[in-house]
Amino acid sequence: MAIISVINGPNLNMLGTREPGIYGAQTLADIESSLTQLAEQHGHELLFYQSNAEHDLVNKVQQSKHDKVAVILLNPAAFTHTSVALRDALLASDTPFIELHLSNVHARESFRQHSYFSDIAKGVICGFGPDSYKLALLAALPLIQKPSRD
Amino acid sequence: MAIISVINGPNLNMLGTREPGIYGAQTLADIESSLTQLAEQHGHELLFYQSNAEHDLVNKVQQSKHDKVAVILLNPAAFTHTSVALRDALLASDTPFIELHLSNVHARESFRQHSYFSDIAKGVICGFGPDSYKLALLAALPLIQKPSRD
Amino acid sequence: MAIISVINGPNLNMLGTREPGIYGAQTLADIESSLTQLAEQHGHELLFYQSNAEHDLVNKVQQSKHDKVAVILLNPAAFTHTSVALRDALLASDTPFIELHLSNVHARESFRQHSYFSDIAKGVICGFGPDSYKLALLAALPLIQKPSRD
Amino acid sequence: MAIISVINGPNLNMLGTREPGIYGAQTLADIESSLTQLAEQHGHELLFYQSNAEHDLVNKVQQSKHDKVAVILLNPAAFTHTSVALRDALLASDTPFIELHLSNVHARESFRQHSYFSDIAKGVICGFGPDSYKLALLAALPLIQKPSRD
Amino acid sequence: MAIISVINGPNLNMLGTREPGIYGAQTLADIESSLTQLAEQHGHELLFYQSNAEHDLVNKVQQSKHDKVAVILLNPAAFTHTSVALRDALLASDTPFIELHLSNVHARESFRQHSYFSDIAKGVICGFGPDSYKLALLAALPLIQKPSRD
Amino acid sequence: MAIISVINGPNLNMLGTREPGIYGAQTLADIESSLTQLAEQHGHELLFYQSNAEHDLVNKVQQSKHDKVAVILLNPAAFTHTSVALRDALLASDTPFIELHLSNVHARESFRQHSYFSDIAKGVICGFGPDSYKLALLAALPLIQKPSRD
Amino acid sequence: MAIISVINGPNLNMLGTREPGIYGAQTLADIESSLTQLAEQHGHELLFYQSNAEHDLVNKVQQSKHDKVAVILLNPAAFTHTSVALRDALLASDTPFIELHLSNVHARESFRQHSYFSDIAKGVICGFGPDSYKLALLAALPLIQKPSRD
Amino acid sequence: MAIISVINGPNLNMLGTREPGIYGAQTLADIESSLTQLAEQHGHELLFYQSNAEHDLVNKVQQSKHDKVAVILLNPAAFTHTSVALRDALLASDTPFIELHLSNVHARESFRQHSYFSDIAKGVICGFGPDSYKLALLAALPLIQKPSRD
Amino acid sequence: MAIISVINGPNLNMLGTREPGIYGAQTLADIESSLTQLAEQHGHELLFYQSNAEHDLVNKVQQSKHDKVAVILLNPAAFTHTSVALRDALLASDTPFIELHLSNVHARESFRQHSYFSDIAKGVICGFGPDSYKLALLAALPLIQKPSRD
Amino acid sequence: MAIISVINGPNLNMLGTREPGIYGAQTLADIESSLTQLAEQHGHELLFYQSNAEHDLVNKVQQSKHDKVAVILLNPAAFTHTSVALRDALLASDTPFIELHLSNVHARESFRQHSYFSDIAKGVICGFGPDSYKLALLAALPLIQKPSRD
Amino acid sequence: MAIISVINGPNLNMLGTREPGIYGAQTLADIESSLTQLAEQHGHELLFYQSNAEHDLVNKVQQSKHDKVAVILLNPAAFTHTSVALRDALLASDTPFIELHLSNVHARESFRQHSYFSDIAKGVICGFGPDSYKLALLAALPLIQKPSRD
Amino acid sequence: MAIISVINGPNLNMLGTREPGIYGAQTLADIESSLTQLAEQHGHELLFYQSNAEHDLVNKVQQSKHDKVAVILLNPAAFTHTSVALRDALLASDTPFIELHLSNVHARESFRQHSYFSDIAKGVICGFGPDSYKLALLAALPLIQKPSRD
Repeated sequence: MAIISVINGPNLNMLGTREPGIYGAQTLADIESSLTQLAEQHGHELLFYQSNAEHDLVNKVQQSKHDKVAVILLNPAAFTHTSVALRDALLASDTPFIELHLSNVHARESFRQHSYFSDIAKGVICGFGPDSYKLALLAALPLIQKPSRD
Repeated sequence: MAIISVINGPNLNMLGTREPGIYGAQTLADIESSLTQLAEQHGHELLFYQSNAEHDLVNKVQQSKHDKVAVILLNPAAFTHTSVALRDALLASDTPFIELHLSNVHARESFRQHSYFSDIAKGVICGFGPDSYKLALLAALPLIQKPSRD
Repeated sequence: MAIISVINGPNLNMLGTREPGIYGAQTLADIESSLTQLAEQHGHELLFYQSNAEHDLVNKVQQSKHDKVAVILLNPAAFTHTSVALRDALLASDTPFIELHLSNVHARESFRQHSYFSDIAKGVICGFGPDSYKLALLAALPLIQKPSRD
Repeated sequence: MAIISVINGPNLNMLGTREPGIYGAQTLADIESSLTQLAEQHGHELLFYQSNAEHDLVNKVQQSKHDKVAVILLNPAAFTHTSVALRDALLASDTPFIELHLSNVHARESFRQHSYFSDIAKGVICGFGPDSYKLALLAALPLIQKPSRD
Repeated sequence: MAIISVINGPNLNMLGTREPGIYGAQTLADIESSLTQLAEQHGHELLFYQSNAEHDLVNKVQQSKHDKVAVILLNPAAFTHTSVALRDALLASDTPFIELHLSNVHARESFRQHSYFSDIAKGVICGFGPDSYKLALLAALPLIQKPSRD
Repeated sequence: MAIISVINGPNLNMLGTREPGIYGAQTLADIESSLTQLAEQHGHELLFYQSNAEHDLVNKVQQSKHDKVAVILLNPAAFTHTSVALRDALLASDTPFIELHLSNVHARESFRQHSYFSDIAKGVICGFGPDSYKLALLAALPLIQKPSRD
Repeated sequence: MAIISVINGPNLNMLGTREPGIYGAQTLADIESSLTQLAEQHGHELLFYQSNAEHDLVNKVQQSKHDKVAVILLNPAAFTHTSVALRDALLASDTPFIELHLSNVHARESFRQHSYFSDIAKGVICGFGPDSYKLALLAALPLIQKPSRD
Repeated sequence: MAIISVINGPNLNMLGTREPGIYGAQTLADIESSLTQLAEQHGHELLFYQSNAEHDLVNKVQQSKHDKVAVILLNPAAFTHTSVALRDALLASDTPFIELHLSNVHARESFRQHSYFSDIAKGVICGFGPDSYKLALLAALPLIQKPSRD
Repeated sequence: MAIISVINGPNLNMLGTREPGIYGAQTLADIESSLTQLAEQHGHELLFYQSNAEHDLVNKVQQSKHDKVAVILLNPAAFTHTSVALRDALLASDTPFIELHLSNVHARESFRQHSYFSDIAKGVICGFGPDSYKLALLAALPLIQKPSRD
Repeated sequence: MAIISVINGPNLNMLGTREPGIYGAQTLADIESSLTQLAEQHGHELLFYQSNAEHDLVNKVQQSKHDKVAVILLNPAAFTHTSVALRDALLASDTPFIELHLSNVHARESFRQHSYFSDIAKGVICGFGPDSYKLALLAALPLIQKPSRD
Repeated sequence: MAIISVINGPNLNMLGTREPGIYGAQTLADIESSLTQLAEQHGHELLFYQSNAEHDLVNKVQQSKHDKVAVILLNPAAFTHTSVALRDALLASDTPFIELHLSNVHARESFRQHSYFSDIAKGVICGFGPDSYKLALLAALPLIQKPSRD
Repeated sequence: MAIISVINGPNLNMLGTREPGIYGAQTLADIESSLTQLAEQHGHELLFYQSNAEHDLVNKVQQSKHDKVAVILLNPAAFTHTSVALRDALLASDTPFIELHLSNVHARESFRQHSYFSDIAKGVICGFGPDSYKLALLAALPLIQKPSRD
């Protein structure tokens, strides 16, 4: 059994409670709930975290080793394009991570084309709404068996 | 009667108390005071907020719907050029906003020419010192009568 | 009592007479009328001018000193992005000016992001439709009391 | 029967009278004459105009609705690369137009690669000398039957 | 009598059979048919070719001299932006050609603004739907009388 | 039951047979086999295709409607960065597709950062080796229930 | 004896009458006067012209052949950076010209680094105040002896 | 005796405790300890601060005047490349500062080549590991004798 | 004895048969003939291949290991600038190769300055006409003695 | 009487002796001779220097103060585009200088458009062949009367 | 005891003798003297060298191994931005070096932002006037204990 | 019999004597020796030259005509990327030259991708170590038979 950390960036706390006709009725709590279930089906434990504050996310990533986190699923949201601090925390944590996005960032504003995380992530998943989380968790399973990065 | 939110970014708490010979004697409290008076003259209530922390500003913007804010007057200061998180919060809040600046940003360093807010603002006002706030409030009045965007 | 010059660039003569459902029913004459009234309320005289010809606008700006103009409200329209001649005339006139736009230029084509005037203007106002003129006039009032540029 | 406006930019008045060995013996008057004949063959009237002055061209385009012009054939010449005012006039006129050039602009100086008109034109024709006018007129015929855009 | 070659790039075989409400009911066969008729009216023969394969188009252009082709009408479609091989074949074939497009490429994605053919074409026609072919054929007629390039 | 098309670009035929110590022992046939099994578990049929030729891939995509393909899983390989023709075929096919890559393209040469497909894909998955295919198939399942694109 | 045309762009009519402490007491009339004297010393006639209007300058350049002008001394002022029309007029006039500037344009705003005239001028002189005119006239003398361009 | 403030950006709290074989065994506490000793040797007091939060660092810099800080030694870490807010705080604090880095940023990712601080710092030191702090303190000594910036 | 593969890109089949006055009388067959002779003089066998089709070249490169090719001499012609697929095939083939060009590509259009092959080639030879092939073969000889790439 | 230094960069020693049909028969010695005569006519002394070595030119410029040089006429030739050392020497010498070129650099390769000297020169003269020297000397005369730079 | 080489680029010979009010009274000889003293205090020998000639500096660096130099302190001055030859010499010398500058190059012209040395230096120090040398020497001490680069 | 000049840029004097395990045991003298032998086998004489000084290389190239040099083999080393003076000397010498490099410059730092020589060379050879010299000499032989450039 391993610990999988799911870390969510700014404004994701707004998910689902606002304009459900557009963004769907799922809240971040719903995603956490179904994702916890999926993790437990594979015998793993889920740590789920969201913050609008960059330093909270940096702190959480720094604690990964102490928390015995095997892999991080990261939805950096707006920080995708601006946070070198979070990038450095991930480099320092030495924990493999998967970058995920609800929307297809490639179909949005040009400044969203650049990510400070993609080149150091194990892989990237974007565009599948809440399913992006499930796919990232499934993608993480093989990393847990062999968690060391070469 | 409507609620007008005035949101101020980092370092604006330093205003007026430092080098009054250069920047004038007005503090942010002075601006709040005269702006509250102007809002009340037009029968509106003013919420005035400043923080050096990005996540505080994001939180404040997210609460706009809950606080029944009709329009936001935003002086993003340094975050003008760096905060996608604040941009996303404004997009999510679905509240019309006006971007304002004390100084004429077009006459300063080249990195200050780019704003993450101007293209989604109702309008932009810059260069008039503390008067930029008053002008933004006056510009906001018609938006209160017809607050819906599209 | 001071003289405020309002100078309008190309195609603004089309305002209001075309597609009132979209651009509103206000013509440039309507704007002139209500702006004159506002100027007189503050004890000032308004000179209102529009031309589709760059040289007419250059000539008008050159005459500012001779006409004892205290401040210029400039809507350069399309010349915002192309006229160095008008910029040079403003530099030569040594008269403070405020740049204004009906639309939010930051939300339009990318070539409209650059202005030959913003960096030498006192301030910039854009996006408020005909109200942009009124706001610019109000912004100009303090400049009249102390018209000299440092 | 419809009215087709042909609008020519700066220096096209020099055509044909200078260096006929190189540019051919056709003057702009020759082009007007043969084009008028072609228009009449298809039952349409031709308005032919040239000016070296940007504002004259802007004025002419602004009058298109008043003159009941069904379609504009535009050879902007040097203004292709510099006139936002003419672009704005065309947008305001709400009259469909075809951009044409005598020379193949793609085979000339790099600054001639950018046009302020191509993206809002119905279509573009370049490189066929005086025949570019005839082809543009033939291309315009279907637009006259269904003159409304979008 | 001369031979006019019409060469069509990838995906043009889909024309007309898909979404006729949007793209019109004309298939590429319809265009070939009406274009053949127009060519014969002017006493010329038409060779009409389409392929999704770059090398087929390169081969066809290479055979132009052997096939005694007087002029090529080229709709390179997607290869407009990517095929140096086709450009080199046209340079090697020493046959004058006209570049044409159904849509106005200048009003589409930014990567469609660059063509590997425009600077070596006799001229360019775009934006007139199936009429772009007819206009290109008419534009080609004078080239047949004097087919040699200087 | 729906048909899922898996389309593979150039050089993927080399997979697994070369340097298994580095790239793993899985061949493209192995991937096809396990992916077919996964599709059948969810009650769907798999069409699996690979070619080194751009036109073969264009043809295959064009046939999607005729083949009643519900969704395409696309690994464009080298064509990711060069094939506008394949992009146009996908736009013409009007079939939703998911872009996938074996490697994390963001961690490779800079020219691999640009994709002609990502902005028109439903979503993108990269970096998980052969698992990228399985994840893409799982991501495609909800698209089959509601295959229409808005 | 030859005719030398001196053509001055926008805002040069302001010279000398404004801020003589900074720009010197010389007006454009003073420059014309001393330049006429210098021309006559060398047995030539001077045509001196200034306009704020681009089309007036274009017209004047077009008349060069008719006016038997041997060489043009051009101070394009603000049009240096914006007027393709004036460039085209000079190309059409087939008259050699020298570009001159009062100020050192290389020490000013970055947009003043680009000239539409320098690459087609005989030579360029800038930075010497009113002496730039005299130097240009002296530089023009050898061009009059052998006025033809190879 | 003067007060020297040492301000450290995000992730520097991880120093030394992680991978001592690579980064050395020195923690930030070790650096603080030896730096305090060095400051006291020169008769000065040291204020040492680290935070992962941008606003904490902004606040600390704002208090410099109140804390009678003579000079700031700043290791902005990841904020070097992203924080205009910290830059503005330093500009507002009117306290001279020295920028320092543990690693040679010029030998790392290209986005690390740009600093928001270097152009307003007294000087920059990078690449000497923990010694960068000692060198910065020694470099600061002359600034304390003559702390005013010209 | 080793096998040397010579692979030629699009349009090279046109060599020599067209405009021999300009490009010389040598056909690709002539080059093959003299190159075969040179290879045999050094005791090696030559495989000579040309295709206008990218996938044929990709296939041929993929077969290098199976064909026991010791080194590839590659004239990618137009594919130099566009074919990532061919680059990937060379990377996959793990066979050392030399890039060669008949013309000096550095003296041609700017888009010919970029090669998808040079950075992974053993070396590059260009500008010597048919001699480029001979020089490449001579350059390849030492690679055959020690064919493994480090 | 003042001393005027004329400093010439690399390859100017080749002038006149090579291809006189193209570059004219004047050698650098001829230019020195006629320039000395012109200087003496105005009561000044000429120091004339040429070197192909950057450090010789740097040394010569450094000695300007010691040599009581009033003004430098500088033809930096190829060093125009590459020598920061010569720029720094000129800045250190605190001697006004005029940049001159034989050819019109604006009509040559794009890398010749940038000069390391123009923005710190008094003025620039280019394109007049050997006359560029005479014009520069005449332009320097007023600088001698008032040699101090503000 | 080790040998420390101090290598100074062009124009540094001018230091101190010119405008002492601005640059301070210290000459390069003064710096050498106090630096020698500091080196001897730490038991090391100093080799001090300055040249305006790039090849002299290249030669000096090449001799480092022969001269048993343990570490180089390099103030490349103007060559910072232009000398690949000096970079290559340092790479070839295999001697660790520290780059230093008197001024803060980040606060000067934009072309001074790029260094050909920073990415291969051990570290960089700039902005502290003559103290930059002392700091560099102190920074070099640990390199002498363990001079080998990994 | 003809004279072939071999000109070598900075740091090539270090070849072979340093780290023979990496760069091979061949010194520049070894290369000169074997190259002289090869030249004599073809009945030609070799002039071999190396310098770290740009002006020495410029001088040597200028003497080519006087020395009756038929062709130059140029390894500009670091000057490849920085020396316009050497480029101008080659243009002035009117002697055909071949550019060669020991290493494959395309596989090194990005600033090494640009050469000031390639576009004016007869051809370019790089990446073959000392063999690059031999190949360049062989490539030069046909130029000797017909040494004149058209």
